[in-house]
Amino acid sequence: MRWGHRFRDQRVTTHVALVARAFGASEFILTDIKDEEVRATVEKIVASWGGELHFEMGIPSKLVVKNWRDNGGCVVHLTVYGENIETSDVLKRIKTCGKDLLVIVGSQKVPKDFYSPNVSDFNVAVGNQPHSEISSLAVFLDRLYEGKELAHEFSGARMKIMPQKNGKKVVKSGISPI
Amino acid sequence: MRWGHRFRDQRVTTHVALVARAFGASEFILTDIKDEEVRATVEKIVASWGGELHFEMGIPSKLVVKNWRDNGGCVVHLTVYGENIETSDVLKRIKTCGKDLLVIVGSQKVPKDFYSPNVSDFNVAVGNQPHSEISSLAVFLDRLYEGKELAHEFSGARMKIMPQKNGKKVVKSGISPI
Repeated sequence: MRWGHRFRDQRVTTHVALVARAFGASEFILTDIKDEEVRATVEKIVASWGGELHFEMGIPSKLVVKNWRDNGGCVVHLTVYGENIETSDVLKRIKTCGKDLLVIVGSQKVPKDFYSPNVSDFNVAVGNQPHSEISSLAVFLDRLYEGKELAHEFSGARMKIMPQKNGKKVVKSGISPI
Repeated sequence: MRWGHRFRDQRVTTHVALVARAFGASEFILTDIKDEEVRATVEKIVASWGGELHFEMGIPSKLVVKNWRDNGGCVVHLTVYGENIETSDVLKRIKTCGKDLLVIVGSQKVPKDFYSPNVSDFNVAVGNQPHSEISSLAVFLDRLYEGKELAHEFSGARMKIMPQKNGKKVVKSGISPI
């Protein structure tokens, strides 16, 4: 879940969504606001590169959190102020909680509530230094899935990259390399 | 080294620089162009949160690469088309090369040369799916340093976060928590 607010940067929001897809999330929710350009970019990527990323927007963040918890899920808020993913046991506790995870990626301007147990079961810092919501989500998911998400083959892809030591090679579905 | 070009996004470039600092790089070079706003934001973060991140901009990328190699360094280009960091042994080969690393973070529009051995000793894909130069740099450095960079204490910080399960706590240098 990406907390939406009127000061957010469109490009950053798009990158957050692409990280969600590439690092193993099944759904992306842009809360509180709607942005058709972000949706179009993300849907274009999914159409070309495959997989499924359920996309929602405009739902109030409080409602997303309430529904998630009512369905037995667990809420993880990524914030520089939280428990350090490297020096604490927070990731271990998250892994063993056995619940579906809603990961909140906000910004410095998220409501105060997000830091409280009323919203977040875990406040997790990908290091306690300022960097980016994009990098926080990527490193959190990379560690959560222990790197396996980067080997995932996306179904229904029209295009697929063939990894190379040098140069670029892309294969179109059913067609020879270009 | 962040490849600079006139279509780049200022916010994304700033996030790349902050990731470089937070994930253990000692230097950030914005090549080919100058951007005083990016420099000012990065210098402000360094002044508040400590550590040292040498900042350069406006140097031609070819010159940066030539100087680095002439001084015995090794060049790593992060690109979706490269060897997969999870499924290949590329990270192991980089770790054992024993040279100072210059990491190039570009965009889809980087010159073709960047993919050739004339520029890059290694072309590394943080997964072969599109996401973001910000997440690529973060996950690459997190894996390179095996997570240790997130426990690093930055010297000379005016402000320091005290990790919390809930809420926010920041300590100013020599002053009680706020």
